[in-house]
Amino acid sequence: MSPAQDEVRRRPGGRSAKVRAAVLRATLDALAELGPDAVSISEVARRADVHATSIQRRWGSRDKLVLDAMLTHSQEQLPIPDTGTARGDLIAFARLIRSYLATPLGGALARVMAATEDDPAPGRAEFWRSRYDSASAIVDRGVARGELAAGTDPRQALELLIAPLHFRLLLTRQPLGDDDLERLADAVVRSFAAQGLS
Amino acid sequence: MSPAQDEVRRRPGGRSAKVRAAVLRATLDALAELGPDAVSISEVARRADVHATSIQRRWGSRDKLVLDAMLTHSQEQLPIPDTGTARGDLIAFARLIRSYLATPLGGALARVMAATEDDPAPGRAEFWRSRYDSASAIVDRGVARGELAAGTDPRQALELLIAPLHFRLLLTRQPLGDDDLERLADAVVRSFAAQGLS
Repeated sequence: MSPAQDEVRRRPGGRSAKVRAAVLRATLDALAELGPDAVSISEVARRADVHATSIQRRWGSRDKLVLDAMLTHSQEQLPIPDTGTARGDLIAFARLIRSYLATPLGGALARVMAATEDDPAPGRAEFWRSRYDSASAIVDRGVARGELAAGTDPRQALELLIAPLHFRLLLTRQPLGDDDLERLADAVVRSFAAQGLS
Repeated sequence: MSPAQDEVRRRPGGRSAKVRAAVLRATLDALAELGPDAVSISEVARRADVHATSIQRRWGSRDKLVLDAMLTHSQEQLPIPDTGTARGDLIAFARLIRSYLATPLGGALARVMAATEDDPAPGRAEFWRSRYDSASAIVDRGVARGELAAGTDPRQALELLIAPLHFRLLLTRQPLGDDDLERLADAVVRSFAAQGLS
């Protein structure tokens, strides 16, 4: 028995999970290669070797499929760290983002998303809202521990960390060493430190 | 006499300056429409209605032409403010960048530069080095006035301001209100404030 068959036997829903994974991966590949405007359910169906009607039934629309693919991928690749300190979390998160953006798929997705003119894009706004909501835990825990000032806006603090990573990847193309990530996390912590806002 | 002829008469070098301006503008338009990889001296010559040999003679290479066009445009559109305070300078600079990125040409150039895979790109590194060098005056004056800590790295402080503007334009597409720019400048000043690093 192949490992794949074994997987299907052992776990109810294994077949369904496999189809879902194949469809999401095909969606990401198509996004990275063609850009979001050119991704269609039929294109994804062809790449994943799945019936278009199955995708239509399961995801409802192309936009929902793209959002699911992007969010699932980000959640898998960029889990929110919990190291015990705000500084540690910010450094660990920055490291994950750097690694992610250095993968061919991660880099291509960022480039494609930057280049696309898609306003208004409900999927884009929802993607970032969801990502910021997850990562807010880093700031909330920092505030609870007294490291960051009460009232710190999680989105603003996180943007100050995340934006330079993407700015370097996309525009200046300067390398990002570990020391850069630490200096960046230090700058964010200083800016929102508990005494800084008092 | 047309204003253009008048300009040529009045100012020695006026004709040459006009050709230069036409070539640089044609270069920017081609960059925004075709991307840097597809910009050639012959394409620019066609658009500017100038002989390719003249461009070759004056700029030497396609890469130098592109760099000159980008830097000249940035210097014109993004002069370094000098308001009397670091906070004021950062806010004024952020406003200029926001306006610039909201123009069709500025937005298109940023998107195209983000999407291009051109590593290693000497022109890109030189462009950003030159821009950071100009804008460093904001940080240097802030340090001299005692607003920012001695030893503040101008590039790091400026990146913290500039990166979120580009990140929003390119990736999250969240709007940038005046209050956002002020909060951003405040975050940068807090992070590098004279007492913050002591």
